Amino acid sequence: MASIQQFCETIDVNLSTGPDLIDITDMLSDCISRSHIIDGTVSAFMVGSTGSLTTIEYEPGVVADLKDAISRLAPPDLPYAHELAWHDGNGHSHVQAALLDPSITVPVRSGKMRLGTWQQVVAINHDNRPRRRSIEVTIIGII
Amino acid sequence: MASIQQFCETIDVNLSTGPDLIDITDMLSDCISRSHIIDGTVSAFMVGSTGSLTTIEYEPGVVADLKDAISRLAPPDLPYAHELAWHDGNGHSHVQAALLDPSITVPVRSGKMRLGTWQQVVAINHDNRPRRRSIEVTIIGII
Amino acid sequence: MASIQQFCETIDVNLSTGPDLIDITDMLSDCISRSHIIDGTVSAFMVGSTGSLTTIEYEPGVVADLKDAISRLAPPDLPYAHELAWHDGNGHSHVQAALLDPSITVPVRSGKMRLGTWQQVVAINHDNRPRRRSIEVTIIGII
Repeated sequence: MASIQQFCETIDVNLSTGPDLIDITDMLSDCISRSHIIDGTVSAFMVGSTGSLTTIEYEPGVVADLKDAISRLAPPDLPYAHELAWHDGNGHSHVQAALLDPSITVPVRSGKMRLGTWQQVVAINHDNRPRRRSIEVTIIGII
Repeated sequence: MASIQQFCETIDVNLSTGPDLIDITDMLSDCISRSHIIDGTVSAFMVGSTGSLTTIEYEPGVVADLKDAISRLAPPDLPYAHELAWHDGNGHSHVQAALLDPSITVPVRSGKMRLGTWQQVVAINHDNRPRRRSIEVTIIGII
Repeated sequence: MASIQQFCETIDVNLSTGPDLIDITDMLSDCISRSHIIDGTVSAFMVGSTGSLTTIEYEPGVVADLKDAISRLAPPDLPYAHELAWHDGNGHSHVQAALLDPSITVPVRSGKMRLGTWQQVVAINHDNRPRRRSIEVTIIGII
């Protein structure tokens, strides 16, 4: 077998008040191109405790539906112990992000992410204000 | 240390109308056997935006309970913006899959997955019709 | 590029009746120090079907809020098919753990996990009794 190589990069994205989603598929694809890795995995990680990563069909309907579901998981208008102590109004943001998880690992095949036809990787801001967020990208595989 | 190797494979599974679960532990174990990798990780990824992967104790009770919980997360009978635009009746499927996440990474030790005694890896179809789904498997580690 | 190395270790933690959380950031950081890996990823996996891993801001308010949200996802007082068959009272524990996911992959940069300033990695016990749990740690990267 060929030897395994690794490539690390940081993606920065601007997100609006949460729950807000952005499609990061093209940015990840560009990282993979620069890595020259053909087969392996790309692991992406949302830095910060009020953000998360997952995959969806990135069309306005699913985006709206997922925002609604996230708000049902941890509604902003419930009382939160975090808010009683810190008064920053984002208790729900912390809970939503913890439930959705900050990490995702996607297979790379023939130099591209092996996603479904209608499947995109999205970054989510759950915070109660716009945030610039960093996503750490680690690509491991065979060149 | 020994050098790191990588092994890639695709698992195809048939799933009924969602939420439907299948135990893929044995299929993943067979991939690990074929890879000859002894210590490392196996990353599995559900290709498609209406499926997901997780672990459970795969017995009929937990399977039924998890199906119920998934349907509570995004009930089929809520209005979904995705359905208003696309009329394919699977708005809830997209939301459920996004919340459950398509990727999982399991440790490999002594040539086997290091799962709990009652812990199996399951693939979930959330779509509103039976689906044949591909799961991409990437095993990285020491032979 | 430098060649990729791998380091495996097991972390054991004691957790109270679920949902109970413990901050495992320092234990993971110690593993990374012992691995001498500078850049790469650390994959952690909760062994057992009633535990999970995620990240939060580990302060008492968020801990309490996340426990509440987990209990809303799968309340202990609903009827569970698992309990009808097994009578061990932890049907909700299995569902909670499956929804939260047992695996997480965190980037390693300059010998440390690249977490947000207020972001810690936590292990969660969902079981209805105190548990000693094993977390398998696999660090892959460049020394």
